[in-house]
Amino acid sequence: MNLLTIGSVAYDSIKTPFGSVDKALGGSASYCSLAASYFARPAIVAVVGDDFATADEKILAGKNIDLTGLQKIAGKTFAWGGEYSFDMNSRTTLFTELNVFETFKPVLSEEHKKAEYVFLGNIHPALQLEVLNQIPSPKLVGLDTMNFWMEKALGDLKKVLAKIDILIINDSEARELSREHNLIKAAKIISAMLKQSDKTALIIKRGEYGLLLFSQNLSLRVHPKQSESEIAASPAKALTPRNDIQVFNLPGYPLKDVIDPTGAGDSFAGGFMGYLARTDDISPASLKQACVAGSALASFCVEKLGTERLQNLADGDIEARMKDFKHLTHFEL
Amino acid sequence: MNLLTIGSVAYDSIKTPFGSVDKALGGSASYCSLAASYFARPAIVAVVGDDFATADEKILAGKNIDLTGLQKIAGKTFAWGGEYSFDMNSRTTLFTELNVFETFKPVLSEEHKKAEYVFLGNIHPALQLEVLNQIPSPKLVGLDTMNFWMEKALGDLKKVLAKIDILIINDSEARELSREHNLIKAAKIISAMLKQSDKTALIIKRGEYGLLLFSQNLSLRVHPKQSESEIAASPAKALTPRNDIQVFNLPGYPLKDVIDPTGAGDSFAGGFMGYLARTDDISPASLKQACVAGSALASFCVEKLGTERLQNLADGDIEARMKDFKHLTHFEL
Repeated sequence: MNLLTIGSVAYDSIKTPFGSVDKALGGSASYCSLAASYFARPAIVAVVGDDFATADEKILAGKNIDLTGLQKIAGKTFAWGGEYSFDMNSRTTLFTELNVFETFKPVLSEEHKKAEYVFLGNIHPALQLEVLNQIPSPKLVGLDTMNFWMEKALGDLKKVLAKIDILIINDSEARELSREHNLIKAAKIISAMLKQSDKTALIIKRGEYGLLLFSQNLSLRVHPKQSESEIAASPAKALTPRNDIQVFNLPGYPLKDVIDPTGAGDSFAGGFMGYLARTDDISPASLKQACVAGSALASFCVEKLGTERLQNLADGDIEARMKDFKHLTHFEL
Repeated sequence: MNLLTIGSVAYDSIKTPFGSVDKALGGSASYCSLAASYFARPAIVAVVGDDFATADEKILAGKNIDLTGLQKIAGKTFAWGGEYSFDMNSRTTLFTELNVFETFKPVLSEEHKKAEYVFLGNIHPALQLEVLNQIPSPKLVGLDTMNFWMEKALGDLKKVLAKIDILIINDSEARELSREHNLIKAAKIISAMLKQSDKTALIIKRGEYGLLLFSQNLSLRVHPKQSESEIAASPAKALTPRNDIQVFNLPGYPLKDVIDPTGAGDSFAGGFMGYLARTDDISPASLKQACVAGSALASFCVEKLGTERLQNLADGDIEARMKDFKHLTHFEL
C-alpha cells in the first residue's frame, strides 16, 4: 500500500553540543517519508521555494519517495533554526521562517486522492482537514499535532480528530488536550475524541521513556478478559471492570549517545505508518509491531545530525534493532 | 531460602489528597518485609520504642515475618511525617524523629548470621557495612541507599558497595553517584563500584516509568551476542562491541489512581529479594522475573494508604499482576 504524508519540507539549522548543520534538509515530511521509505513508497505533499536544491530533491527521490506532490514555488523554503543544551531535553528555537509554507494550500492529484494510508503531519488542523476532505476513502488516517494548535485552534483540531483513526502525540500534549494529568484517564478522554471504529488508537510518546499505545481493540488488556468458565470455576478471582484498559508499553531504545533529537517524532510516525502500509494489517499485533518499527527508526534518527542516519540505513539494520527491542523487554513467567 | 532485611520500622503520618493516616505502621523494613512475605519468610533487623503497639507487631507476625531481630527498647519509635501534592510526584517531609533509631547498633543473632539472602535497607552505609560484616557467607546481598549518603558519607558508601551484589537506586541517585547524566553510561560506572562476580547487577528505578536492570551476565543485550557461525555466514552483519550493554526494561504498571506512593520503593525491593530467595535462582531469567515481582508489589502498595494493601493481598493477586506485565510489554515479531 502507498502512504501519503502531508507536512513540511524545510531547511534546518541545528546546533548541538556535538556538532551543527546549516540549511540541512529537514521538516516533518522529510523525516517522516525517509523513515517510511524503508517499508513503503511514501508520497510527500508539501511545498518548497525555488532555493530548494536539486541535491536535496535527489536525496528524497533516491529513497524512492514520490515527489509529484512536492510543489516548488517562487520564494524561500520554510527555514527553522534550533539549539540543544547538553541534556538534549531542552531545545531553544532560534528562528522560524514560514516563507512559502505560509500560504500553502495543499491540492491533491487524482492519484493521491486514492491514498489508502494517510499521515497528516503537524500543520494547522484546518489544513489537515482540507487535505483529508480530498481523500474519499482512506483506509487508515494518522495525525500528529502539538500544544500550539490546542491553544490557538482547538475547534478545528477537534473537527479533524473526529475524522482520523490514530492520533500520535506526546505526554504533555495528551495532558493538555484532555485536561487530565493521569495518562490512563487522559487516554480514555482523548480516544473518545477520535473517529470511533475498530481502528481507533492513540499513541502517547514519552520521550526517552518510550510510548504507550491505547486502543479499544488491542487484545491485550491490563486486566485480561476472563472466560465465563474461568469465572465460574473461581468466582473469587473474577476481575472487576474498573481497570479495563487496553494498553501496550514500549520503552525507548537505550542509547549511549544522542547526537541530535530533531525529527525523532516524525521518524517514529514515518516508521509506524510505513510499517502498517507495507503489511496492510491493522490488527493489534501489527499495531504493536508498527510501534516497534517506528521506535527503531526514531532511535536511528537521533544517532547522527539531521536526516543523515535516515538516509543511510543498511539492509538488516532495522530488523536487528526491532529484535533488540524484544531482547530489551521480554521475559518468561 | 530465608531473607534478612535491615531497615527502619517506623510510625508514619501521611497526608495525601485522597486521605491521611496518623502513626501508621511504616518504615523501610516494614514495607520490604510485608512485600517479601508473599514469597519467603523475611526476618527484620530493626529497633522500635516501647510505644510500639502489640497490634502492629501482630500485623507483621501475622504475615509470617520473623521478628526475633526486632529490638524493643525504652524510648519512642522512629516517626516520620510527609505530605503529597496532587501530582503525587512531589513530597514534603513534615518531620523526621529518629528517636530510638538514632543509636541503633544492629547485632545479629547466630541464626541471622547464617542468612543467605540479605537486603540492606536505606540506612547509614557504615551501619550497612557493620551488619554485612557479621554475615560470613551470604549468597546474595542487595542494597538500597539515597542521595543523602552520597553527599554525607560517600567514603563509607563506596566501601559497602564494593561488598554487595545488587544495588537498587533511582535515576537521579544513579546520576549523582556516577556524575554522569546518560543512564547507560552511568550504569557502567556504577556497576564497576560493586563487588564483581556473576551476580553483579544494578537496578535503576524511574518512578512511574518503571526500571532498567543492568547486569554483565544477562543473556540479553541490546546488541545480542552472535555465534561464530552466524558471523561467518554474514560478515557484513557482524555486530560491533560499541553498544555491548546488557539491559532489561520493565515499565511501571499503568494505574488510574495512585493513592499513596509511600513505601513503593521498599515494596519493590521486598518483592524483588523475596522472589529471588524463594526461587533460590539468580540466573538472568530469574532476575527479570524478580523485577516483575517487585514491580507488582510496588503497584499494589500505592493503591491504598500506608501498608494497608500489602497486608491484604489475596491468593492469585500477585500472579495475575505479573501476567499483566507480560500483556503490557510483549509483542511478536
